[in-house]
Amino acid sequence: MPDNRSPVDGARVLADLNALRSIGAYKTGVHKPTFSEPHMRSLEWLVQQLPQAGLTAEIDGIGNVLGTATKSGPKLLAGSHLESQNYAGWLDGPLGVVYALEAARVINPDPNAKGAVEVASWCDEEGHFGSFLGSRSYVGAVTEADIDAARDRNSDRTMRQALSEVGLAGRARAMVERGRHIGYLEAHIEQGQTLESGSLSIGVVTSIVGIWQYRITFVGEQNHAGTTRMAVRRDAGLALARFCVDIDDRFPASCGPRTVWTTGRITLDPGAPSIIPGAAEMLFQIRDDDAAVIERLEDLLRSMAAAVSAQGRCNVAVERIRTGAPALMDTSFQQAIEAASTSLAGGKSIRMPSGAGHDAQVLATILPAGMLFVPSIGGISHHWSENTSDADIVTGAQVFVDACRRLLAR
Amino acid sequence: MPDNRSPVDGARVLADLNALRSIGAYKTGVHKPTFSEPHMRSLEWLVQQLPQAGLTAEIDGIGNVLGTATKSGPKLLAGSHLESQNYAGWLDGPLGVVYALEAARVINPDPNAKGAVEVASWCDEEGHFGSFLGSRSYVGAVTEADIDAARDRNSDRTMRQALSEVGLAGRARAMVERGRHIGYLEAHIEQGQTLESGSLSIGVVTSIVGIWQYRITFVGEQNHAGTTRMAVRRDAGLALARFCVDIDDRFPASCGPRTVWTTGRITLDPGAPSIIPGAAEMLFQIRDDDAAVIERLEDLLRSMAAAVSAQGRCNVAVERIRTGAPALMDTSFQQAIEAASTSLAGGKSIRMPSGAGHDAQVLATILPAGMLFVPSIGGISHHWSENTSDADIVTGAQVFVDACRRLLAR
Repeated sequence: MPDNRSPVDGARVLADLNALRSIGAYKTGVHKPTFSEPHMRSLEWLVQQLPQAGLTAEIDGIGNVLGTATKSGPKLLAGSHLESQNYAGWLDGPLGVVYALEAARVINPDPNAKGAVEVASWCDEEGHFGSFLGSRSYVGAVTEADIDAARDRNSDRTMRQALSEVGLAGRARAMVERGRHIGYLEAHIEQGQTLESGSLSIGVVTSIVGIWQYRITFVGEQNHAGTTRMAVRRDAGLALARFCVDIDDRFPASCGPRTVWTTGRITLDPGAPSIIPGAAEMLFQIRDDDAAVIERLEDLLRSMAAAVSAQGRCNVAVERIRTGAPALMDTSFQQAIEAASTSLAGGKSIRMPSGAGHDAQVLATILPAGMLFVPSIGGISHHWSENTSDADIVTGAQVFVDACRRLLAR
Repeated sequence: MPDNRSPVDGARVLADLNALRSIGAYKTGVHKPTFSEPHMRSLEWLVQQLPQAGLTAEIDGIGNVLGTATKSGPKLLAGSHLESQNYAGWLDGPLGVVYALEAARVINPDPNAKGAVEVASWCDEEGHFGSFLGSRSYVGAVTEADIDAARDRNSDRTMRQALSEVGLAGRARAMVERGRHIGYLEAHIEQGQTLESGSLSIGVVTSIVGIWQYRITFVGEQNHAGTTRMAVRRDAGLALARFCVDIDDRFPASCGPRTVWTTGRITLDPGAPSIIPGAAEMLFQIRDDDAAVIERLEDLLRSMAAAVSAQGRCNVAVERIRTGAPALMDTSFQQAIEAASTSLAGGKSIRMPSGAGHDAQVLATILPAGMLFVPSIGGISHHWSENTSDADIVTGAQVFVDACRRLLAR
């Protein structure tokens, strides 16, 4: 049960989250791809809320919303994102933005609270155009050339075109004012079942796993599906299917206790029912918080590909297209979240790594960073049926705001 | 070597094939999807050639070109198709149309040759909108509702829209005049390596295999690729890959000597790198000239699907979406082709089934039908590099025209 001693207005937090859900609603979730009309309307909604929290609002050239405080004293940066995966959940992103907004509304006007919370909504955390383009732009890790090269994974339009359609200038210069913040705090739904299965309220994130992504391509020989005997076929699609199964059979002997791997997309070329595929491609991802584990698995992947190629029927190429270093969360941030949980959530918290990527891993490259999780019902994520109970949402907000207060008071 | 005693003009045949190749050229092949501009221009080209062969030309409401003779005596229908697979070969279709045109040019004006050859170019043999829609419309096997339901597999526009864009009325009534023709003869490239590997010039087709096509769908649970542990995943894409491999491992024990099977298309839903696919679909095809073999394999397929579903992780559904009866070629047509081969190709012919589907299988439902194959270099088909030597093309034309003469002279 939410704690009555907290200054957090739980009804206001739930109302804000539901207001954001009504923009781009899809079933009980939302459909807000980056730079879509409902995404831009959600950014405008946030811009209108920020002044109530004593913050000056601005949308930067790449679609980040930033709320800047005039109050003196230490500043803590907090936030998450407002766009969604396609036809996905209502809390993935908005929860962290509304918690940050609530923290700013509670702490910034309070003369007895030290310092201020500044609010950020990072653009395109969900990767419609790239990988953490908003937060990476903020920390100075995006170049003009990166923006030039970025394309919408749904429509293949360029990012420049999308930016221009929504009236954003596009920018690659760092926005952050070095030394301004004591750190960055982000809240998010867990997207797994660790909290729910342990009847816990709060996850204290210790690290964010690195994501390594690969494009694995198979080249065989395109031919007629009726006239080419089975014995002489060089079917790239079948080679891909065998490779997927081999990965699943062989990875468990080399992986770590929390490693996960996923084939998220498969394309056969030309993809017609009467043509033996001459080429095939899979997008493959490995996640772990131990880079040594990933290195071992990548070696295995490459040796498996070489073995298939050596058989001479299909050629397999493994190309790494994303390299994600695991990010460690600051220990003093973990302690602040844990202390707030003890005070307001009956100590029902657990330290755990994040299997999902978050903007906090980007901010962690320049600032001490922390993350707090709330439970996901059934662990469902990246689907419109994703949900968290109202009581867990309010408890999470209370712990989050208290953790902000503790970090600013140090 | 082509035979000097033949009345066939080999240079004219090669020039016509190259004229058709120059319309919609792609590398050494062509890109002529059904109702595309180069496809329609190819039909117009044929319409302009037909009067030289004593034929009255017409394009019917579904895009078939028909050349009708006024010469008295028996009539033989001959032809193939002019549209292509996407970015595919120059001979797949046009070879049979130009052979038919050449036969009409040689036989129709010759007062010493009995009867006439009538020429047909069947629309959409390559199945951009359906399955043999042109020839099936001609024999009366296409309804208005079939045309209403047909869609372009490349763009998803409706067939009605495509027909209207190229100025065709669309029609579902039978065009054929029953009793007009003694039969139907079609020539085609082999699309396999039987002729080439046996140093043969002519394939005498005995039967055309039936094509059974299936949509196999897998339903698991969509979830986050970072936060969902391997042990609890219900990955529909992985289930599909395992199913492909199982088919390949288990079909050989139950199939016939010439059975082939192909997974031509795979789709994972939603198809994003960071999402475990909650659903997946494969288009799967089996071809054989023995319906009993297919029945056995379909039973196996369904029992494999039931076994996977029973494990409870993913549900697998097998839906048959195309049922193709094998078609037998008329024995007197086989004899005529063989006699022509003995006379003009040094007897270098072989009787063989066709692993590919052809319009001849549709015409065979109402007329005695025959097919003749010429060699394919390297067996390559449905790819722009498909080819046949000029000498083999000319020899094939000579045998084709002689077979027409023999059939009309009976």
